[in-house]
Amino acid sequence: MNWKSEISAAADRISGYAQVTPVMESHALGLDDPVEIKLEHMQHTGSFKARGAFNTLLSLDVPEAGVVAASGGNHGAAAAFAARALGYPAKIFVPEMAGSSKIALIKRTGADLSVVQGEYANALTEAQAHEKATGAMQIHAYDAPATVAGQGTCFAEWEAQGLQADTVLVAVGGGGLISGALAWLQGARKVVAVEPETSCALNAALQAGEPVDVSVSGIAANALGARRIGSICFGLAQGMTSVLVTDEAIAEAQKLLWRAHRILVEPAGATALAALMSGAYQPANGERVAVLVCGGNISPDPLSD
Amino acid sequence: MNWKSEISAAADRISGYAQVTPVMESHALGLDDPVEIKLEHMQHTGSFKARGAFNTLLSLDVPEAGVVAASGGNHGAAAAFAARALGYPAKIFVPEMAGSSKIALIKRTGADLSVVQGEYANALTEAQAHEKATGAMQIHAYDAPATVAGQGTCFAEWEAQGLQADTVLVAVGGGGLISGALAWLQGARKVVAVEPETSCALNAALQAGEPVDVSVSGIAANALGARRIGSICFGLAQGMTSVLVTDEAIAEAQKLLWRAHRILVEPAGATALAALMSGAYQPANGERVAVLVCGGNISPDPLSD
Repeated sequence: MNWKSEISAAADRISGYAQVTPVMESHALGLDDPVEIKLEHMQHTGSFKARGAFNTLLSLDVPEAGVVAASGGNHGAAAAFAARALGYPAKIFVPEMAGSSKIALIKRTGADLSVVQGEYANALTEAQAHEKATGAMQIHAYDAPATVAGQGTCFAEWEAQGLQADTVLVAVGGGGLISGALAWLQGARKVVAVEPETSCALNAALQAGEPVDVSVSGIAANALGARRIGSICFGLAQGMTSVLVTDEAIAEAQKLLWRAHRILVEPAGATALAALMSGAYQPANGERVAVLVCGGNISPDPLSD
Repeated sequence: MNWKSEISAAADRISGYAQVTPVMESHALGLDDPVEIKLEHMQHTGSFKARGAFNTLLSLDVPEAGVVAASGGNHGAAAAFAARALGYPAKIFVPEMAGSSKIALIKRTGADLSVVQGEYANALTEAQAHEKATGAMQIHAYDAPATVAGQGTCFAEWEAQGLQADTVLVAVGGGGLISGALAWLQGARKVVAVEPETSCALNAALQAGEPVDVSVSGIAANALGARRIGSICFGLAQGMTSVLVTDEAIAEAQKLLWRAHRILVEPAGATALAALMSGAYQPANGERVAVLVCGGNISPDPLSD
């Protein structure tokens, strides 16, 4: 697949639907060097997922039965938002662990929502059954070309906004976002995958030499807790740098973003920064580093009704 | 005073001390037209006040007794932060109404903090007494040329970042920020002053034809609750557009910023947007509008220890 042209086409397609998110150079993190940050948690529905959802719905034929998605929460909200914006019905399955903020967010879109016992994989099973029964189109959360191309627009946009960094740190769940990063940036800049120790499907796959099932838990699990890395991601990720961070490091980074810049995000949104602050990733001398803040749907919602 | 050159000099002076804050164009506010937003709440200590504090300390001779400031909270935090960064002792007086978040924020800077009964004016009285007794330098929260020039750098920076708007909406407390806006933008763009109905020192002064005392209350009072508009502001504000918003409109705008973009701010930070969303300010057809988000120190702190 010619990912660069897929991503360029996706960027044209979703222009005016997805939000261009702001970038900054932070001097307030207590590090010797500034860090470039893209505030992708300011995207519609609070995460990068809106990009992939819009690209999917705008590039494929949507059946009368509409769309269906399984999600830890963020993808479901994005799919529901994009479906509503484009006039399609949406059926969303989320696991209980999605949490109250994300469940309320999906309800606000007007989508038909089912909350499923257990983890993400259970929601996916139900979504697949719904797809089969109704003919609704499945918007996969990460392992589909249109999703990956959509997420890749985040990095194309960042370069157009003047990204300087040699290295970009990105949090990984099922691998859609990091696939987009690798597909767009590979060759030009180093991409570092950051996962929680307790939800590390990509790291485990790279170690095993093939995608393997992992157990998922921890504070970022409702966003990063995919049981198995996507096959597109596994293909793109060969030879890449993959690091792990503790829940404590994630919570510290989450606090730092708030204290330094009043950026309030969910744990997944602070996971990439956690690698830099904890030393899980140590840049070489002079290596310029950028961090993607990918999701903001913190629970409990600080301004819930 | 040649404000343009004062502000340019201030911008050079505080470069590397103040944070360049990001800008965006929002398509998620439910309006027909996009709105430019500058995320100045991401400044050090969570408000634009760091600009004026750094400019003051970097442009004037600081005595051995250090600096003193009276503040609803944000200016005190900024003065304390700037003093620490430059190695000066700081004594800060805040009224009780500053609230727990701002008081904790000032304590974290290591400044010597006194919490004063009553409102901002009481804190100012004590700060003036301290200045007289110790020889410490008063950093005025809004009515001093170095403060105004520092706040003006926010608008110079915004223009350098590509500001397109015909009209810029800015919240007003004592008038330091709006003075900076008028001093930099006047003539080139329309500046609209937005105040809460319950803390409207500028609006009252414009109506009376001179600065007058007002009573202050409401949800934004700990940031915008100056009892009398500064004389610099009153001079610059002649003939400008001044609008008032209700506490309900402020709370709605605060929720909208969070829902639409995961921008979590204190009421003052949402006050300028409230004028646009409530119709207190109605742009003409084709008039492009920008909103400054000026402060993020919401109480209670969503991530307090």
